[in-house]
Amino acid sequence: MSRPRIVIVGAGFAGYRTARTLARLARGAAEIVLVNPHDYFLYVPLLPEVATGILEPRRISVSLAGTLPGVRLVLGEADTIDLDGRRVGLVDPEGTRRELSYDRLVLSAGSVNKLLPIPGVTEHAHGFRGMPEALYLRDHITRQIELADATDDPAERDARCTFVVVGAGYTGTEVSAHGKLFTDELARKHPSLRDREPPRWLLLDVAPRVLPGLPEHMADTANRVLTRRGVEVCMGTSVDEATKEGVHLTNGRFLPTHSLIWCVGVRPDPLVGDLGLPTEKGRLCVDEYLNVPGHPEVFACGDAAAVPDLNHPGEITPMTAQHATRQGKTAGNNIAASFGQGERRPYRHRDLGFVVDLGGFQAAANPFQVPLSGLAAKTVTRGYHLAAMPGNRVRTGADWLLDAVLPKQAVQLGLVRSDAVPLENSAPELPVRTGG
Amino acid sequence: MSRPRIVIVGAGFAGYRTARTLARLARGAAEIVLVNPHDYFLYVPLLPEVATGILEPRRISVSLAGTLPGVRLVLGEADTIDLDGRRVGLVDPEGTRRELSYDRLVLSAGSVNKLLPIPGVTEHAHGFRGMPEALYLRDHITRQIELADATDDPAERDARCTFVVVGAGYTGTEVSAHGKLFTDELARKHPSLRDREPPRWLLLDVAPRVLPGLPEHMADTANRVLTRRGVEVCMGTSVDEATKEGVHLTNGRFLPTHSLIWCVGVRPDPLVGDLGLPTEKGRLCVDEYLNVPGHPEVFACGDAAAVPDLNHPGEITPMTAQHATRQGKTAGNNIAASFGQGERRPYRHRDLGFVVDLGGFQAAANPFQVPLSGLAAKTVTRGYHLAAMPGNRVRTGADWLLDAVLPKQAVQLGLVRSDAVPLENSAPELPVRTGG
Repeated sequence: MSRPRIVIVGAGFAGYRTARTLARLARGAAEIVLVNPHDYFLYVPLLPEVATGILEPRRISVSLAGTLPGVRLVLGEADTIDLDGRRVGLVDPEGTRRELSYDRLVLSAGSVNKLLPIPGVTEHAHGFRGMPEALYLRDHITRQIELADATDDPAERDARCTFVVVGAGYTGTEVSAHGKLFTDELARKHPSLRDREPPRWLLLDVAPRVLPGLPEHMADTANRVLTRRGVEVCMGTSVDEATKEGVHLTNGRFLPTHSLIWCVGVRPDPLVGDLGLPTEKGRLCVDEYLNVPGHPEVFACGDAAAVPDLNHPGEITPMTAQHATRQGKTAGNNIAASFGQGERRPYRHRDLGFVVDLGGFQAAANPFQVPLSGLAAKTVTRGYHLAAMPGNRVRTGADWLLDAVLPKQAVQLGLVRSDAVPLENSAPELPVRTGG
Repeated sequence: MSRPRIVIVGAGFAGYRTARTLARLARGAAEIVLVNPHDYFLYVPLLPEVATGILEPRRISVSLAGTLPGVRLVLGEADTIDLDGRRVGLVDPEGTRRELSYDRLVLSAGSVNKLLPIPGVTEHAHGFRGMPEALYLRDHITRQIELADATDDPAERDARCTFVVVGAGYTGTEVSAHGKLFTDELARKHPSLRDREPPRWLLLDVAPRVLPGLPEHMADTANRVLTRRGVEVCMGTSVDEATKEGVHLTNGRFLPTHSLIWCVGVRPDPLVGDLGLPTEKGRLCVDEYLNVPGHPEVFACGDAAAVPDLNHPGEITPMTAQHATRQGKTAGNNIAASFGQGERRPYRHRDLGFVVDLGGFQAAANPFQVPLSGLAAKTVTRGYHLAAMPGNRVRTGADWLLDAVLPKQAVQLGLVRSDAVPLENSAPELPVRTGG
């Protein structure tokens, strides 16, 4: 009999951990196939540090082949799933359609930018889900400061020096915190900007406070650090319309800007919505064993799955990297159990706490519910990330060390074009190919 | 009276050094404008180390604004020069045409890929002049190894694992030396490649030996290191035709490959050929003061200029970074002299020697005509580069240190598309925009 094949769709936190767990448990008894658009695991929580020039992009891009021995990587974007025929359809990087049959399927396709029906946002806002978007943003910010320096028109200069971040969750808070430090340092290098007001950053959210969903003391810390640094924290405010010249806010103001950074959150990858199976908030319903009811061979985990939260009956687990990682481990374990190896077990996880890096020597953290801020939180935050990354730890630590002691690098490499990173994109992992 | 304006076209070795020299001498008495397609000085000699993953791209991209205080940077590609009206025409990054008048002009536009009329080369070969090409190549090499691992077809696997470098000058020799080490390490990480023959690299040149133009002992060292490492050094051989499936060599052999790397050298930027002024080998003729005869306000230096070699009467100086840098200094000095500050002086420079990095602990060097190889040459080579770079030295040194002790990072970021880096390109500094 040939080896059974386990196909894992998506190598984010959930899929990566599923593959790693299975590779360890299977020891060659099953063929483990990982389908992903690119050959690396992206450590998303540090993406704001790539966008603001602190970390090099390859630091947070961990080679799948290098860290998952025993797992076969198939590069491609899965776009159809035939549950009856047990086949996954995908398009490989050269544009060829391929099909993969499976004995077990793990859906861990993650999430994409959430859009809101606000006029102009799709055209004028920059998203923040993948490496191309982060590198585009890094270039974009640098370019705005250079163009502000080059112009003689005060109105254009002010617009170029205004950055609007929508969404004060984890990502938006970090982007504005790091972004403000980045542009302030860039501006000091440009003769015509040095003696003016530093660039403006505004952080907007409809919620009443920053970091909604995280503990109050973390929001207080973030709010204090951001405000002291000069970020204008505008809660209860959002965007009514975005245009080429700027944004109309819900409070009636118009802000001239060329930089609208969209961090309002994510929605599950549309792949799972197209299956014809029950979903909750766009996430595929599974039982506490991460199994899709009625399909004992199909599992789902991470942002793509609606997993019952056994610690909060009636709720589903939030979309966090921590849950995705733990669910990946459970999924791997339960798939092995479905082949008779070990026992299946329900998913249950208590949060270890959260960390939010605020740039400089600032952070907010609550490890094991202990509220921390300042340097203590910063140390915990960086330690947490180094522990959670599946590779590249020494290089990441080296970048942090160099960033602490050297001036920032401020160049535009100009590799990602704006039309390669549209906000409305079901696959933000790779640049979009237009024309050519 | 308003300040005179000095416009420098191109921020390569020659233009960068001209700007730096003038900024120091002028002390604000003249407006110094530097026109360049991007906001960084590219330290080209280390480009092979970026293409093979040793250095991060920003290491060799030195911020112009950050290192040239007192110089105004105008981003754009200069494409017309009106010598009578004393105006430079350029296209800025947003596609707008602009004009700049000048009192003094420095043409230091550098060089672009040299093409040979060989069928198929323009379509199928990858050039090696700018950052987009180097990063495309880094991804391309990684992708070939991954696709070789994924295929079950032995012929395809062999073709994917064959890399052909044409041109055994400085660049081609370094690319094949580093490239072989890179692919050997990548292949060891892939289960289906680990136990086979390591990937093949071939280095071709019509010349009878590698490094033509450099001292014999350096060629011997390079030849010995390359051969021992497994690079097939095929001198007296070139390409008759390139196709999608491989290359036909001049010795009648056909090599199946998807990787034809074109390092046959460079030709001066076509901008200087369009001026209607005398040129030699495509380079603009200047006198020993780097002045264009008949145009006392126009200077040229670096690869774009045919500068008389006073040490070898009747010859012009070769296209090297060393000459370009020294000529930039002379040009800056002589322009200051043309305003009455200091004395103009003729260009004269004796080579300090050459360095060729061969990867691992190997190099060939002849500092002050002292022939070195092995670790001594490697030390001199890296020391030379660190001394010659105008910035980012600590970060470059840190990358070298990490590369020496850590496994290589092997991921494709997929940011540069193949059609963005055509071989036939008068501006290889930026990706080409197609469609969109």
